[in-house]
Amino acid sequence: PDKMKSNKPRWTVRASEMSKNTLNPIRAIVDGMKLTPNPEKPMIALSIGDPTVFGNLPTDDTVLQAMKEAIDSYKYNGYAPSVGYQKSREAVANFYSRAEAPLESKDVILASGCSQAIELAISVLCNPGDNILVPCPGFSLYKTLAVSMGIQVKLYNLLPEKSWEIDLQHLESLIDEKTACVIVNNPSNPCGSVFTKDHLQKIISVASRNCVPILADEIYGDMVFPGRDFYPMAHLSSDVPILSCGGLAKRWLVPGWRMGWILIYDSNNIFGNEIREGLVKLSQRILGPCTVVQGALESILNNTPMEFYQSTVSFLKSNSEICFSELSTVPGLNPVMPSGAMYIMVGIEMEQFPEFQNDVEFTERLVTEQSVFCLPATAFEYPNFFRIVVTVPEEMMVEACVRIREFCARHYRPHSQDSNDLDQ
Amino acid sequence: PDKMKSNKPRWTVRASEMSKNTLNPIRAIVDGMKLTPNPEKPMIALSIGDPTVFGNLPTDDTVLQAMKEAIDSYKYNGYAPSVGYQKSREAVANFYSRAEAPLESKDVILASGCSQAIELAISVLCNPGDNILVPCPGFSLYKTLAVSMGIQVKLYNLLPEKSWEIDLQHLESLIDEKTACVIVNNPSNPCGSVFTKDHLQKIISVASRNCVPILADEIYGDMVFPGRDFYPMAHLSSDVPILSCGGLAKRWLVPGWRMGWILIYDSNNIFGNEIREGLVKLSQRILGPCTVVQGALESILNNTPMEFYQSTVSFLKSNSEICFSELSTVPGLNPVMPSGAMYIMVGIEMEQFPEFQNDVEFTERLVTEQSVFCLPATAFEYPNFFRIVVTVPEEMMVEACVRIREFCARHYRPHSQDSNDLDQ
Ligand SMILES: Cc1ncc(COP(=O)(O)O)c(C=O)c1O
Ligand SMILES: Cc1ncc(COP(=O)(O)O)c(C=O)c1O
Repeated sequence: PDKMKSNKPRWTVRASEMSKNTLNPIRAIVDGMKLTPNPEKPMIALSIGDPTVFGNLPTDDTVLQAMKEAIDSYKYNGYAPSVGYQKSREAVANFYSRAEAPLESKDVILASGCSQAIELAISVLCNPGDNILVPCPGFSLYKTLAVSMGIQVKLYNLLPEKSWEIDLQHLESLIDEKTACVIVNNPSNPCGSVFTKDHLQKIISVASRNCVPILADEIYGDMVFPGRDFYPMAHLSSDVPILSCGGLAKRWLVPGWRMGWILIYDSNNIFGNEIREGLVKLSQRILGPCTVVQGALESILNNTPMEFYQSTVSFLKSNSEICFSELSTVPGLNPVMPSGAMYIMVGIEMEQFPEFQNDVEFTERLVTEQSVFCLPATAFEYPNFFRIVVTVPEEMMVEACVRIREFCARHYRPHSQDSNDLDQ
Repeated sequence: PDKMKSNKPRWTVRASEMSKNTLNPIRAIVDGMKLTPNPEKPMIALSIGDPTVFGNLPTDDTVLQAMKEAIDSYKYNGYAPSVGYQKSREAVANFYSRAEAPLESKDVILASGCSQAIELAISVLCNPGDNILVPCPGFSLYKTLAVSMGIQVKLYNLLPEKSWEIDLQHLESLIDEKTACVIVNNPSNPCGSVFTKDHLQKIISVASRNCVPILADEIYGDMVFPGRDFYPMAHLSSDVPILSCGGLAKRWLVPGWRMGWILIYDSNNIFGNEIREGLVKLSQRILGPCTVVQGALESILNNTPMEFYQSTVSFLKSNSEICFSELSTVPGLNPVMPSGAMYIMVGIEMEQFPEFQNDVEFTERLVTEQSVFCLPATAFEYPNFFRIVVTVPEEMMVEACVRIREFCARHYRPHSQDSNDLDQ
């Protein structure tokens, strides 16, 4: 006020709107929780979608060997083209190409993790003011990215009682002329669900009828339990153009390496050159993933033994079964058996746990009392559930289930007809 | 027209405005050039800012060793925090911290190359409608990123006759209330210039007077010729907050590895928590650089021998001197001697080469006739110059200069007073 006459500039540096609008719900929720474990029990974190944290699921030695060879070759220290080396793109194309959905190197864009693949795919397909359809419950990054870019997010429902299939009517009802794409995440984080061929065909029909392209987040592709099949959406689509996002993170168990890709499927030439070129242009902003990993890619894809993949999914299945069978006899909890990926969702009958307002409070107290941390599914826009990561060592999984049972027994207050469960 | 009554959707998938607005002038110009070398002369590319292409400037073995140790440790395969491992950030902080501008790990944000560091820095400081001040000639990425985000770019002039110092009056005249930051690139691509302490202090004064933060692109930091000094801007600033962007790409000669960083200097707490938190949030979009490189970072920074750095810059100096002394006696060319980085800019007296409209035509014909490719400086918004990369092997540098001389001699048509040069 005493400076009214002065026009002298003053320092005011504010963070941009975009940075403020980059909201990570997992961080927002977890940071807001009081996570003080019970000092008498060692902490068991079932919350982190990183299969490497406990050391029980190392990547294959072939994968590490490939990296060391790439380093020793002295060939992968310079800049690669921003969409990746031709040879590395070709290796990905060959690995995923099938007669019904052929791929060439030009159909592959390498990116810094599946996260950047998704960012590029959304960025090329959507303008501010458009909307995208994303699964609920679903991986939070879609919304984080879209909102920060001024793209509206519409959530379509998954149905827990139908193994998390998409509510197709709901999906279709959300499509309007501003819908730029439908994101389908199969196998699913957080559900661990794997769609059947039939269901996938129905999803594609919805997209086809409405002329909406699909962004298929297939980062957990092929991570399905023995006896189940994974169908890349593109193998089932005759007209709908599909950007399939994937990477090394999950199947090869090296999420830190930040190697992702977009597979461009466009048999009917609907994307045409424009989308391809758009992706190339966007990739030039930060110039692709680490060249050492790119150099190792061909060998990683071609030489990793089948047994490695098989033993990973067998382990995930076995741990899921342990968790499912333990928790399905816990009164007040309703786990949904997964078929792939590395997660299991557990419903909480909140009305039977009157001490807790919601899944956030429930999981918070589970930490305080039992030192077990599960992610409240509010982080996936899906209250009254929590998500368990099934990559932890088996003993931990078992011990965690025991503690969850103890916790639930202590807080369970049946107050409705279905409370007979208590007597089991 | 015959479908007027039908409301049936039709396929129209367009690339987004943002992808269309992501313009890479280097690509646009180079792709538009007819680059058919003379079949009788082997091609010499002096155009690529990648010091690794000719194999004469390998990185140090310590650097490769550090990578292999990171791989063998099995510790760096999982997710790191999106801003990088605490230990890796600390290693960078320790490496660059000085009494006059101390750094802690919290002041370091790791990113996927200096390119992403710059993207994050611009993204956190600027809103659409703001403007940023960028050097002319200058590295094209600043404009590419800004334009795609709806941020206006104002070019401030560098003065070739003053070793590419900033025209400070011009710089200051461009600042208005919408100016979100000034980008200063020192040492410079494409100029190879290195600002004196005195000049840097004057730049900081301009920023200080006008309360505009500085984005210092210091990716060529410390790459200055023997006898010259590099001053990080932050060491000279008492009030202006500075985001300094750097990385391993150039000094450690591994641009493909995509390891960059932002150093946050904010001694007067003008950025405050907001900018830091904004950077953290933005980093969560694609989750930081490759963890293997992060794991190797401490050892790379601490164990790379001094001789490695010294021999790189000695080589660059020697090659620059060869190039400068050769070309400064070529009638019609005016090279500007650099003091660092890995480039030399050469002015073309266009009026003496009436066959060519501009630097693009000049360099195009240089390829056709002499199989030497230099980047026309139109790519840096600076017509009538071309840029030479001085990382090529010495014999190539010499041979390229001979051919450039031959080319110029052939096309030189003096038509003004200063044409006496011809007789030299
Ligand atoms: C469904 C889904 N998509 C994408 C990603 C991101 O993968 P990346 O680590 O390769 O960026 C994840 C990671 O958890 C995920 O669960
Ligand atoms: C001035 C300048 N800044 C930033 C970069 C980008 O560095 P990086 O390869 O680490 O993304 C370059 C690359 O040439 C550059 O010349």
